[in-house]
Amino acid sequence: MNDWIRNIDWGEIFVAVGIIALQLIAIFIAFTIAKSIGSKLIKNAFNRFSEKENMSVGRAETLQRLTLSILSYVLGFIVIVIVFEIFGLDVKGLIAGAGILGLAIGFGAQGLVSDVVTGFFLLLEKQLEVGDYVTTAGYDGIVEEVGLRTTKIRSFDGTLNYIPNREISSLSNHSRGNMRALVDIGISYDDNIDKAIEVMQQTCDKVAAEEEAIVEGPSVLGVQTLGASDVVLRVICKTENMQQWAVERKLRQALKQALDENGIEIPYPHQVNITKEKA
Amino acid sequence: MNDWIRNIDWGEIFVAVGIIALQLIAIFIAFTIAKSIGSKLIKNAFNRFSEKENMSVGRAETLQRLTLSILSYVLGFIVIVIVFEIFGLDVKGLIAGAGILGLAIGFGAQGLVSDVVTGFFLLLEKQLEVGDYVTTAGYDGIVEEVGLRTTKIRSFDGTLNYIPNREISSLSNHSRGNMRALVDIGISYDDNIDKAIEVMQQTCDKVAAEEEAIVEGPSVLGVQTLGASDVVLRVICKTENMQQWAVERKLRQALKQALDENGIEIPYPHQVNITKEKA
Amino acid sequence: MNDWIRNIDWGEIFVAVGIIALQLIAIFIAFTIAKSIGSKLIKNAFNRFSEKENMSVGRAETLQRLTLSILSYVLGFIVIVIVFEIFGLDVKGLIAGAGILGLAIGFGAQGLVSDVVTGFFLLLEKQLEVGDYVTTAGYDGIVEEVGLRTTKIRSFDGTLNYIPNREISSLSNHSRGNMRALVDIGISYDDNIDKAIEVMQQTCDKVAAEEEAIVEGPSVLGVQTLGASDVVLRVICKTENMQQWAVERKLRQALKQALDENGIEIPYPHQVNITKEKA
Amino acid sequence: MNDWIRNIDWGEIFVAVGIIALQLIAIFIAFTIAKSIGSKLIKNAFNRFSEKENMSVGRAETLQRLTLSILSYVLGFIVIVIVFEIFGLDVKGLIAGAGILGLAIGFGAQGLVSDVVTGFFLLLEKQLEVGDYVTTAGYDGIVEEVGLRTTKIRSFDGTLNYIPNREISSLSNHSRGNMRALVDIGISYDDNIDKAIEVMQQTCDKVAAEEEAIVEGPSVLGVQTLGASDVVLRVICKTENMQQWAVERKLRQALKQALDENGIEIPYPHQVNITKEKA
Amino acid sequence: MNDWIRNIDWGEIFVAVGIIALQLIAIFIAFTIAKSIGSKLIKNAFNRFSEKENMSVGRAETLQRLTLSILSYVLGFIVIVIVFEIFGLDVKGLIAGAGILGLAIGFGAQGLVSDVVTGFFLLLEKQLEVGDYVTTAGYDGIVEEVGLRTTKIRSFDGTLNYIPNREISSLSNHSRGNMRALVDIGISYDDNIDKAIEVMQQTCDKVAAEEEAIVEGPSVLGVQTLGASDVVLRVICKTENMQQWAVERKLRQALKQALDENGIEIPYPHQVNITKEKA
Amino acid sequence: MNDWIRNIDWGEIFVAVGIIALQLIAIFIAFTIAKSIGSKLIKNAFNRFSEKENMSVGRAETLQRLTLSILSYVLGFIVIVIVFEIFGLDVKGLIAGAGILGLAIGFGAQGLVSDVVTGFFLLLEKQLEVGDYVTTAGYDGIVEEVGLRTTKIRSFDGTLNYIPNREISSLSNHSRGNMRALVDIGISYDDNIDKAIEVMQQTCDKVAAEEEAIVEGPSVLGVQTLGASDVVLRVICKTENMQQWAVERKLRQALKQALDENGIEIPYPHQVNITKEKA
Amino acid sequence: MNDWIRNIDWGEIFVAVGIIALQLIAIFIAFTIAKSIGSKLIKNAFNRFSEKENMSVGRAETLQRLTLSILSYVLGFIVIVIVFEIFGLDVKGLIAGAGILGLAIGFGAQGLVSDVVTGFFLLLEKQLEVGDYVTTAGYDGIVEEVGLRTTKIRSFDGTLNYIPNREISSLSNHSRGNMRALVDIGISYDDNIDKAIEVMQQTCDKVAAEEEAIVEGPSVLGVQTLGASDVVLRVICKTENMQQWAVERKLRQALKQALDENGIEIPYPHQVNITKEKA
Repeated sequence: MNDWIRNIDWGEIFVAVGIIALQLIAIFIAFTIAKSIGSKLIKNAFNRFSEKENMSVGRAETLQRLTLSILSYVLGFIVIVIVFEIFGLDVKGLIAGAGILGLAIGFGAQGLVSDVVTGFFLLLEKQLEVGDYVTTAGYDGIVEEVGLRTTKIRSFDGTLNYIPNREISSLSNHSRGNMRALVDIGISYDDNIDKAIEVMQQTCDKVAAEEEAIVEGPSVLGVQTLGASDVVLRVICKTENMQQWAVERKLRQALKQALDENGIEIPYPHQVNITKEKA
Repeated sequence: MNDWIRNIDWGEIFVAVGIIALQLIAIFIAFTIAKSIGSKLIKNAFNRFSEKENMSVGRAETLQRLTLSILSYVLGFIVIVIVFEIFGLDVKGLIAGAGILGLAIGFGAQGLVSDVVTGFFLLLEKQLEVGDYVTTAGYDGIVEEVGLRTTKIRSFDGTLNYIPNREISSLSNHSRGNMRALVDIGISYDDNIDKAIEVMQQTCDKVAAEEEAIVEGPSVLGVQTLGASDVVLRVICKTENMQQWAVERKLRQALKQALDENGIEIPYPHQVNITKEKA
Repeated sequence: MNDWIRNIDWGEIFVAVGIIALQLIAIFIAFTIAKSIGSKLIKNAFNRFSEKENMSVGRAETLQRLTLSILSYVLGFIVIVIVFEIFGLDVKGLIAGAGILGLAIGFGAQGLVSDVVTGFFLLLEKQLEVGDYVTTAGYDGIVEEVGLRTTKIRSFDGTLNYIPNREISSLSNHSRGNMRALVDIGISYDDNIDKAIEVMQQTCDKVAAEEEAIVEGPSVLGVQTLGASDVVLRVICKTENMQQWAVERKLRQALKQALDENGIEIPYPHQVNITKEKA
Repeated sequence: MNDWIRNIDWGEIFVAVGIIALQLIAIFIAFTIAKSIGSKLIKNAFNRFSEKENMSVGRAETLQRLTLSILSYVLGFIVIVIVFEIFGLDVKGLIAGAGILGLAIGFGAQGLVSDVVTGFFLLLEKQLEVGDYVTTAGYDGIVEEVGLRTTKIRSFDGTLNYIPNREISSLSNHSRGNMRALVDIGISYDDNIDKAIEVMQQTCDKVAAEEEAIVEGPSVLGVQTLGASDVVLRVICKTENMQQWAVERKLRQALKQALDENGIEIPYPHQVNITKEKA
Repeated sequence: MNDWIRNIDWGEIFVAVGIIALQLIAIFIAFTIAKSIGSKLIKNAFNRFSEKENMSVGRAETLQRLTLSILSYVLGFIVIVIVFEIFGLDVKGLIAGAGILGLAIGFGAQGLVSDVVTGFFLLLEKQLEVGDYVTTAGYDGIVEEVGLRTTKIRSFDGTLNYIPNREISSLSNHSRGNMRALVDIGISYDDNIDKAIEVMQQTCDKVAAEEEAIVEGPSVLGVQTLGASDVVLRVICKTENMQQWAVERKLRQALKQALDENGIEIPYPHQVNITKEKA
Repeated sequence: MNDWIRNIDWGEIFVAVGIIALQLIAIFIAFTIAKSIGSKLIKNAFNRFSEKENMSVGRAETLQRLTLSILSYVLGFIVIVIVFEIFGLDVKGLIAGAGILGLAIGFGAQGLVSDVVTGFFLLLEKQLEVGDYVTTAGYDGIVEEVGLRTTKIRSFDGTLNYIPNREISSLSNHSRGNMRALVDIGISYDDNIDKAIEVMQQTCDKVAAEEEAIVEGPSVLGVQTLGASDVVLRVICKTENMQQWAVERKLRQALKQALDENGIEIPYPHQVNITKEKA
Repeated sequence: MNDWIRNIDWGEIFVAVGIIALQLIAIFIAFTIAKSIGSKLIKNAFNRFSEKENMSVGRAETLQRLTLSILSYVLGFIVIVIVFEIFGLDVKGLIAGAGILGLAIGFGAQGLVSDVVTGFFLLLEKQLEVGDYVTTAGYDGIVEEVGLRTTKIRSFDGTLNYIPNREISSLSNHSRGNMRALVDIGISYDDNIDKAIEVMQQTCDKVAAEEEAIVEGPSVLGVQTLGASDVVLRVICKTENMQQWAVERKLRQALKQALDENGIEIPYPHQVNITKEKA
């Protein structure tokens, strides 16, 4: 029984163990270097980017932290795989099994990944800021919070909408520059169009003088439609952001009163009745 | 016949068995350590999280239990694979076969995984609590239960809706802060708009004084639309949560009565009739 | 020619055969143990679960039988794979080929798996029972049968709808507690709203006294809408399950008659006609 | 040159050929046994099933033939793979290549598999029989043929619709039991509701006495809606299958005539006209 | 330098080359046999099938040619793989690479495969023939050509529609048997229904006698709807294929004239006007 | 240190290098031959095809160039793989890695492949030519360019629409043969239908005599609908391609004037008014 | 213990190290050459392309930079894989694991890849330029920026829409050439159509003379529809890009005034009233 013990080639074992130890150390060093270099590169990139783009400190930090986590996970994964291989364990079976499990879960959880990827770009490209008035994914309202997974939008009626970022594909931001106010007024077919336009333009100028929120115009464009009962004239103007509704309301009231004063009719629906004896 | 028995190298067998035994023990120890460390990390994380976020004890426990189960399954899976490999069984075939089977089932059952993943985040992010009035997945009502797989919502008419969590993507929670009441009143084209606004604002102030549920306003915004037969004036105010409908009803009745008293008409649809002889 | 026969090492063969036999026996024993343990665990789990949840015996048995079948198939699959490997047949090719075939079919048949998975949870969570009145997958009616693959719902008009369970995602069960009856009555703009509400509430109280199916209310909420020709008042009450329509019909008739008696008009559509000479 | 020929170990070759031959024979026997056992099991299962479920002979045979074909293909595939392996050909490359090709085609042809799987269950669960009146996949009509791939439905207007079975998910079968006839009659707001209900119920009883297709009722339920110009009363009854339309037509005519005789008006749309001088 | 040349075991090489040659010949023979057997089987199957189903020669040939091509490609693919293996080239890498490329393209081109698969069954099951009037994929018109990839349908207005076969799932063929003509006539509420039915039935009988395209009926079914201003009576009859519109037009004209002659009114929309003094 | 150098078996190395060189040459030759044969086959096929189908030279060249590119890429890929294998580099890892990368990108870029595949068949089958008037993918207009990736269609209003070919599934080509003009004229219920048809047919014949664009007809079909206020008569005719609108306009004007001259009324909407005292 | 050290075959190690070093150098050289050749090819291609297509310098640079990045990543990936293999590390496990991870993420992030691929072609094919007025993905407005991931479109009302490029499939560019103005005018049934057309055409000619934005006549096409109350005449003309609305407004006003002056009526909706005594 002692024979085979004596036959063991201790030297060979010693060398094998030494090689494994050396490999482990080499990998540890490579990992540390890769991580610190990667971290520095990421931090520098974000510093330069956030300076250039005037990004808020909080937002830059969120993005940086996410990128660093991903770096750590990827490097950690590589280290574990290599260590397993050094010990001679067949890592492929393990990876394949775990991978298939992961795929199966991944089909279910891909929404989550999709949320984070979209969230990353929403934050990076500054498509929406807290306080913006936006329309997206069928909701519109004021942005209350932009997270990596969910964006919260407060509707006009007070409802708080939780929207997973993956639902946000196209996004309309109503808080990026001046808005346009648009008022359509229908006048009677019997009224003189030129006179109506003149009266309306004078009213518009008066409103523009009073109202500071108006940036440009308003001007009467002309005959937008020949309606069933009225000739529709269109008025547009540029206003300060979020002031468009107030301006539209003011314009509607002023124009209605001006037309009344000038005897120009805003007509009700008309119908021509032809009386026929019972057939 | 005895020759080959004598030729068996018992020492070699002994060593092989010993190595296997050592490997099994090593794995068992590694597994125990990994599990207890993992459990502690998860528990600590949830304790800190639930304290910070004021999460209810029941909800925190549900989430913690789910996370611990997943940890157990993953570690158990790894142990089984390694044990199989130690005994020299080719685990890849087994895994591949099981994996393909799993994938095939997974395609069918991905809804289930999706339910649990979404349920986890619904519970974690506190998007909805029992008793909240929410709109999601085409249903609206009061939340009766939020489970890992299904959320139950009681509609206004008494119906109980079972909604698999995966159907819940965007979620509108109507129980997160004050709500807005909105009333549109159409007055006649012949009435004086300024006087109507004055009367309505006075009524609004009276209602605001009586009604405790009103938080802010109500105020008359102005001419919202120049309708076919009426000039529509809009009134909005902020109310306590879930009181918006009662306030709207009260406002409608008060405004209607105030306009009646002041001789301002809420007009019926109008039509101008032109009589023509039969052509 | 006899030389090579003599050279055959019968001992080696004997050992090899012996090892295979031992392995087969070991696997058979392991399989038997695993199956009986698994069966017991499943049966105990279902016994405890069905007691706790008041599940009917038939339903519990259906679920248990499905779970036991899956256990048998999984264990059988593992045994076959291991036996193939013991005989030195390369099982990977077979599995891969069969797996790809299975995947191809699986894409086509995933609906079937999806049906069974959903069916399992429908039965387990008791979302619908035979006799419930439900709305799901665009159908509504009385549940006639809940199977693992298909659910049968009888529509009001007598049609029998076969719905594959995978189509059932969100489910509205109208047989879970009291229902709400809702009646909207439009009164004339010329009538006194307060008086109308008083008359309607008195009628509601009378109906409530007569009708046993009414659980709570009915009460007149107030002015729900200022319609084009009428002021709409809303009445709601809670009724016993499935009695809501009968109560609504009774309320409509009683309210109509009470308003008639009190000279309060339920108005036809109104229109203001302005006569104009032909332009 | 002859040296290496002499060196060939003919014994070894002989043994190898012998082993291959034995393996081939063993596989052939195993295949034959497996096929005959499988066939018997399938046939017995179908015999018992078709007796229990009263399935027509033709339908049972179609299903049995499909199941036997699948069994043959699966066994044949396994045999071919094993034979290839016995000859030492690496079957994995072949399978993988063919498999990828198969997958690529499978994506295109998955509709076909889906058709057959759905068709199998349509036949097995007897959801529709030739001659049934069904609604499915947006078509309704009389079933003319239920095949494994396509179902043919004849629309009321004579069109023959070919519907691939995969399009048939939910299915409404209108030929499973009695149907309900439903007639809504609007009476004038000025008429007495109680008297109208009495008159209508008497007419219903008279029709029920004459008409054999009526199984239950008809009975007048009460006020279904307070319409814009009429009070809608609902009548329902149960009729023999496919007789519901004839009964509804008969009821409509009888009720109209009864109301006429009793001076109860079925009103035209009403409108209140208010005349206003031109503003 | 000559040493190692002399050491080459030419015998071994010779044997190896011989074996390869033998294998190549064997494969070539097997391929030839498999192809000719396969071709004959396919041809026989199609001959029997096209005789049984009365399929046109052109159509049968198209299907047969497609099936033979697939057979050739599959056999060719197998031969190439085996030849590569005989020469010791590792075919797996090649296949895997090509396969992944193929998959990537396949995702893009699956529509093409889907077209051909559907086209094959359209031709095989004779769902549509050139000249048929069909509705499918949102188009309706006369079939001009049924190809393996595209079907051409000429709309009524002269447009030629190219429809890829994959778009054709459900298909309504209006050229399979007699069609039904359906005419709804509304008579006045003041007219006698029984008399109207009598008059209409007489007219129908007269038209049926004149018109050869009428196969069955027409008969007056009864009161289909109690409309807002008229009592709708339904007439249906069976006509020869494609004659239904002409018959409907003839029926409409004849019925209108018959009702005129008998003083039964086809009423215009009715409205009851109630005049009210301005409130 | 020199010992091991001396031990190197230069002969073996020489042979190995020689074999590699020979293999490289063989592969290069095989590649050249395969490419030139493939090119010739493709060119011949296209020459014959474009002659047979009257395809324009530009179009045939586009298709040929695409096919030749694919041939080059496929052959190049195979050569690279084989060369790697000759140098003993394990090409599977590389391919697998690149393949997975490719798949990941492929999911994103499959639209591109889909565009090119569809584009290829659009060009090959001549479904649309520059200058055709087509409707596809929700756009209609004149085709300006058919590319491999995008098709450009100029709408009637002057907009240029860029449509990726993958969006083009079904395609309606309005420039393939004569078109049909269709005019519906409503006459009064009091007019004689037969006389109206006679007058209209005479007018049609007159228009047909004047208008060269009319190929067949126009003829009056008969009573298409019994409308609410008019009896609708339908006129159809065949016209030269793209002339259908002009013909329809001419027919409308001529028919209107002819009916006026013959005292046949094209009626306005009718309504029967019943006056009722206020209830 | 020294024995085994002495036994180490230093020569062998030396050779092995040397071979590795040589391989590394060879790969580095190959990589450098491949990269510089690739870069030059790409740069040349883009230079030629941007000259031929008149592409702006900025756009060409964006595209070139993207293509160069992809080249670098692909080459870098290949180098890393080969280096790993040279050191004898089994790179397949690593790649497979990373690949599966990548796939899982890829499913979530495929939108990103899709954005960049589409963005690349949008830039390359110049489908839209900054300042163009386009309609795509349900938005229309002026293009403010075309990026690789997102395109920004400013709506008419001032909203800034962020559209991920993958959402842009079909694209309507309204800034590619002249546009068409279209005005429909309804005249009375009693007016003479020929006279109306003459008057309108004269007005059109006058407007065309005054308005420089008109490129090609307005001309009156004829009777577009025989409406319920009017005969609709259509006028179309070609205008300079973006001037179509102004021209349409001018035409509408001029035509309305011309018809007024010539006593041709633009009619209100007509209705024929038949008075009937209460039935």
